[in-house]
Amino acid sequence: MKLLDGKLIAEQIKTEIALEVKEQYIDKGINPPHLAAVLVGEDPASMTYVSAKEKACREVGFLSSVYRYPANITEDKLLEIIDFLNADHEIDGFIVQVPLPKHIDEQKIIERIDPRKDVDGFHPVNIGKMVLGLPCFLPATPMGIMTLLERYDIEIDGKNCVVLGRSHNVGTPISILLSRKAKYGNGTVTLCHSHTSNIAAIASAADILVVAMGKEGFVTAGMVKKNAVVVDVGIHRIPSAETKSGFRLKGDVKFDEVSGKCSYITPVPGGVGLMTIVSLLQNTLKAAKKAVN
Amino acid sequence: MKLLDGKLIAEQIKTEIALEVKEQYIDKGINPPHLAAVLVGEDPASMTYVSAKEKACREVGFLSSVYRYPANITEDKLLEIIDFLNADHEIDGFIVQVPLPKHIDEQKIIERIDPRKDVDGFHPVNIGKMVLGLPCFLPATPMGIMTLLERYDIEIDGKNCVVLGRSHNVGTPISILLSRKAKYGNGTVTLCHSHTSNIAAIASAADILVVAMGKEGFVTAGMVKKNAVVVDVGIHRIPSAETKSGFRLKGDVKFDEVSGKCSYITPVPGGVGLMTIVSLLQNTLKAAKKAVN
Repeated sequence: MKLLDGKLIAEQIKTEIALEVKEQYIDKGINPPHLAAVLVGEDPASMTYVSAKEKACREVGFLSSVYRYPANITEDKLLEIIDFLNADHEIDGFIVQVPLPKHIDEQKIIERIDPRKDVDGFHPVNIGKMVLGLPCFLPATPMGIMTLLERYDIEIDGKNCVVLGRSHNVGTPISILLSRKAKYGNGTVTLCHSHTSNIAAIASAADILVVAMGKEGFVTAGMVKKNAVVVDVGIHRIPSAETKSGFRLKGDVKFDEVSGKCSYITPVPGGVGLMTIVSLLQNTLKAAKKAVN
Repeated sequence: MKLLDGKLIAEQIKTEIALEVKEQYIDKGINPPHLAAVLVGEDPASMTYVSAKEKACREVGFLSSVYRYPANITEDKLLEIIDFLNADHEIDGFIVQVPLPKHIDEQKIIERIDPRKDVDGFHPVNIGKMVLGLPCFLPATPMGIMTLLERYDIEIDGKNCVVLGRSHNVGTPISILLSRKAKYGNGTVTLCHSHTSNIAAIASAADILVVAMGKEGFVTAGMVKKNAVVVDVGIHRIPSAETKSGFRLKGDVKFDEVSGKCSYITPVPGGVGLMTIVSLLQNTLKAAKKAVN
């Protein structure tokens, strides 16, 4: 078994981006790519994510800015802010950290973002272009999974791929990316979810198994084919007496038993999670280059 | 075996639409829904399709108009026409008949159509919204397949669905519609294509098999599970000495041998093809009601 080491690959890609930023922007006296984040309220997880994104920007030499607003901001005011960011030529791409407070229509906010600055890849036009194989911003987590698999030279073409979970930001888009006609793609994909009756049987036939169910330890060794490639998208905080923090991170896959059976597996933490932020950086660089219209 | 009778269901739906047009528009003195078509050049198949769409509009009481242009029209001129139709309040929805001449960028034309008038459902924003389960115009052929299955009370939820072919206008969107979380959906879908190595084995495990490969007689009885539901999207003109026209229409499925084994099957002709135009009418009615924004 080999690890699909998200930490290693994320560092490699950040080094590549940092070099490009230095050579193509800083050394030429051009402003580097600029990622902005909109943060509403004080949800601890959202604050952590936004800090991590700022830190990643600094590491590669991007400009970053965070627009912070109280949880009681009105939807209209937030729409105005989106319009401002859409029009601001200094900002190449931006994200609106979700979840938003309940009085704000999240979908309405997302659809107001100029698709050319939608580096989260959540706007319907970017999702539609993804389906059609047109230039677009891919959603960060599925994009990170594809990058990780590609860097490890995992063959997808013609392989039996099974995706567990059909969420809008992971399961459904990764099923499309694995399946679509592309230089890296062309897998035969089965998308399973809560209504699937025989998940264990389907999963255990997979050459490549992507697990994004959001259920801790859902996938056991019995559900994995020998020498399969296993990608674990789950992240769960489990109370633990053995760590200082009082918890451990676990995935949707029982790592201890599955790792002995598969050919490759992503660890949790240190797997897919770290690739997500790197995808956001790659999308921001793409936005700065005006590679998506 | 029962037929999934596209002709019968298409007639039923047209009758329903005609009644709604009479009661909600004509009797109230309101202009009925208006579908426009843009036809470039004189491709015989395109001319036939556009005529059939005009005829269907007349049958249900819609207004219809056809904008005809020579094959040498410039791309800029065609874009201007799109802008004109986007702005014309008299027109609820319109389609640009494809294929377009090679000097015109088809995707550019499609993306210029106002998504609120894109009754073909080809604009990326409509495809993205389909993936997200938001109100949108669905592409006509997959929408017609879903309608046909639903009218025959075919259970999809939790069923093993296999789609053969991943085209942008049929295979990929029907795989999404069968799979997505919805009142009618929730199937477990495997999407197969030219890179799939074991199509016969996968197809023969399907409860619902949708065939859109574009290969005449591709699916044999050996590839179909007993009592499966078979949907045949293929249409091929086969020379025949037995018909006046000199040809017969055949599908991607060997009807004679498969029909004895399955529980339901669409005939060719008289199956999916007739549902496509009906979906276009349904989308036009939806556009007239401003049900998609």
